[in-house]
Amino acid sequence: MLSKAIIKDIQSLQHKKFRDESNAFLAEGPKVVKELLLSGVFKCKMVYALADWINNADKKLSDTFIDKVQLVTPEELEKIANYSTPNQVVAIFEKRKESAPIDLKDQITLVLDNIQDPGNLGTIIRTSDWFGVKNIICSKNTADLYNSKVVQSTMASLARVNLYYTDPVEWLKKNKEVKVFAASLLGEPLKNFRGTKEAILLIGNEANGLSEEIQSFAIHDITIPRNGVAESLNAAIATAIILYELKN
Amino acid sequence: MLSKAIIKDIQSLQHKKFRDESNAFLAEGPKVVKELLLSGVFKCKMVYALADWINNADKKLSDTFIDKVQLVTPEELEKIANYSTPNQVVAIFEKRKESAPIDLKDQITLVLDNIQDPGNLGTIIRTSDWFGVKNIICSKNTADLYNSKVVQSTMASLARVNLYYTDPVEWLKKNKEVKVFAASLLGEPLKNFRGTKEAILLIGNEANGLSEEIQSFAIHDITIPRNGVAESLNAAIATAIILYELKN
Repeated sequence: MLSKAIIKDIQSLQHKKFRDESNAFLAEGPKVVKELLLSGVFKCKMVYALADWINNADKKLSDTFIDKVQLVTPEELEKIANYSTPNQVVAIFEKRKESAPIDLKDQITLVLDNIQDPGNLGTIIRTSDWFGVKNIICSKNTADLYNSKVVQSTMASLARVNLYYTDPVEWLKKNKEVKVFAASLLGEPLKNFRGTKEAILLIGNEANGLSEEIQSFAIHDITIPRNGVAESLNAAIATAIILYELKN
Repeated sequence: MLSKAIIKDIQSLQHKKFRDESNAFLAEGPKVVKELLLSGVFKCKMVYALADWINNADKKLSDTFIDKVQLVTPEELEKIANYSTPNQVVAIFEKRKESAPIDLKDQITLVLDNIQDPGNLGTIIRTSDWFGVKNIICSKNTADLYNSKVVQSTMASLARVNLYYTDPVEWLKKNKEVKVFAASLLGEPLKNFRGTKEAILLIGNEANGLSEEIQSFAIHDITIPRNGVAESLNAAIATAIILYELKN
């Protein structure tokens, strides 16, 4: 049985402050938990699971991490989980130490400026993983990678993409050897950039765009042609379309 | 002042059952409310707004709809609004009568099979509007267009894209003159289809893909090439990338 104190501790991981203090984060559901356990990227601290997960669904995995696995009741799981969909399992992992990307050669590297929506950030990470982007630089006001909505919407891609939170301006100053492109509503058509294998791609906040200082590093503004009426595209959608075209 | 009964009525619009019964839905925030009011597509039933919206933010609009506008306090607004971001205004609109698309010529038409996530549906509608898609056919188990998360994430594009909920199989049987493509993980590379101006595009649920019966209508399966590791792409992301390539 989980004590009230433990339940409170786990629930506190919903908040960045407590995630930072305890250097830990929460992952939910069989798919995400399994992939994160198997990746070995994040050290597992605890797994809270229903009997069915332990004895059936992921028995082998459960046996491997047996000293970390604690049986919980459906009622307890509901208290510590964020999502109401049938979840079976919640795990606590240690955050990993962030590191600046070392090599940007022959790669697309993203720079996210103020992407506040956790769902958008998670989707950008998952899409980056699909297209083989290894590194994402995030401004400090971008959503937290360990926010549970981000963790869930990455579908475990967070184990394969390196996120580095820093001041993008300072980082861009130090990385002048790679061409910088900016996603923009008023630029050159995206198809002109088809097959660009190496670039830094700046993605701004939907409402406010890129900060002027970050924008000033771009040698090309890239625009996705509009055939219809909508004012703008969601930031994750724009990122995905640009990555597709650059990578093909 | 809003009576308890009125507040309860407005809150009930969170649920599809009550939206269907009252033939109405809720829109929130200055941007979405303004665009829906200006579009004239949905008949406005009521606008609940803070003094600032009425007297400053959208004074002209507020004057036009003066007989529908009711002043509320921030506390009242919070009770009737879904989102905690500063909202200023909530409006109730009449749902519009659904109609089957009449003409599919020279167009891309989407068929969504079981897209349950409201955020995904909203993003698909917004992206469709960007790329000039006029009609989306939705299976009955796809999220409700008038779900407030859908309404918000469309950013008012729901006024410009026609959604028609029906049995996709029956609908596809009646529309044999347009080529049908399916988004798939195992198909021909998307770039082979660049510049396809007329098509019906089938989009399935991320977890389960398309139902076999719907899939059987497709003459081509389209795949977005993967350069990385992620198992799949989010349904809205896949739709956006395919629309971009077809339209360019």
